[in-house]
Amino acid sequence: MILYFITRNKHKLIEIDNILKQIVPTVQLQIFNNVRKIEIQHNNLREIVKFAVQTATRYITNKPFIIEDAGLFINALKGFPGPFSHYVYKTIGIKGILKLMENVENRTAYFKSVIGLYFNDDIHIFEGVAEGVISRKARGEYGFGFDPIFIPQGCSKTFAEMRLEEKNMHSHRGKSARALALFLKETMPTFS
Amino acid sequence: MILYFITRNKHKLIEIDNILKQIVPTVQLQIFNNVRKIEIQHNNLREIVKFAVQTATRYITNKPFIIEDAGLFINALKGFPGPFSHYVYKTIGIKGILKLMENVENRTAYFKSVIGLYFNDDIHIFEGVAEGVISRKARGEYGFGFDPIFIPQGCSKTFAEMRLEEKNMHSHRGKSARALALFLKETMPTFS
Repeated sequence: MILYFITRNKHKLIEIDNILKQIVPTVQLQIFNNVRKIEIQHNNLREIVKFAVQTATRYITNKPFIIEDAGLFINALKGFPGPFSHYVYKTIGIKGILKLMENVENRTAYFKSVIGLYFNDDIHIFEGVAEGVISRKARGEYGFGFDPIFIPQGCSKTFAEMRLEEKNMHSHRGKSARALALFLKETMPTFS
Repeated sequence: MILYFITRNKHKLIEIDNILKQIVPTVQLQIFNNVRKIEIQHNNLREIVKFAVQTATRYITNKPFIIEDAGLFINALKGFPGPFSHYVYKTIGIKGILKLMENVENRTAYFKSVIGLYFNDDIHIFEGVAEGVISRKARGEYGFGFDPIFIPQGCSKTFAEMRLEEKNMHSHRGKSARALALFLKETMPTFS
């Protein structure tokens, strides 16, 4: 079965695909390019994803698909950059976040990933959270976005110092993708 | 004639109303509370406003209304915070912007306001831009948002050090509101 993924981010595709392959190898993830993902401005990733899935159903019908949104929430910055992480990454970037965090003692933060699945006329939501801290310096070459400054709880490496499998073990997206994969596995008999 | 304004920001209402009163006193601006303004994540304020107006027409029919969106675009920060100014104000705030601008020589920035008018089944867009610089410190008590750190070109005061009329003379919203008011004045005979 083909599961479409409305995204322009190949990193996300690779991360989610790696987990689906292990848990539900019969599901093949494919990027769906023809639909624009419409993101509203909202503090809540769940609402953003629900709205994006609902909007996409106007253009992609009778096909199961997913949309994912994620954000880095820094506690000392009242959750900034949160749902606007992509825009903030493209503008002030990692350098800007490290500057905002200069002399800030509380470095706790979390990454959150929300996957919205459209399947059988229903929307199913899967969430994953990775708690951690903001590093003092950017480290590592792997991954994307704010990965070089996020150290997940219990680890000494940043996400960007981890290869795909290791990051997926700890990451927000690894968790939301596993929840999606388990749901697909369970409903597989009804999934044509 | 009543012109509805979909907003929760009373400052914006007062600023636009002040200009309408002078140019088209027969138009009465009223906040319309029952509709949520749906804002998409987009780099372009025009697109955000158009989408918001289109979405609102599903709920408010046969009544002329406006929606306004504005942002502060700082050149050294690649346009940040831009269309996300409200969210950035609520999280890292003025303190965060000043920290990002520490030791930054190029302090040029602009405020932009886009008003979308829904009238006779058409959407009309009015824009206003105020060029200026980011101050070294926050100054002033008037206005709202990032007004205390923005000094418009040719002035020594920040927006927050100006009373309503003076700010309106220089401000992005003053300019977009004047363009709206002139349009309404011209089309008034057809406006019932």
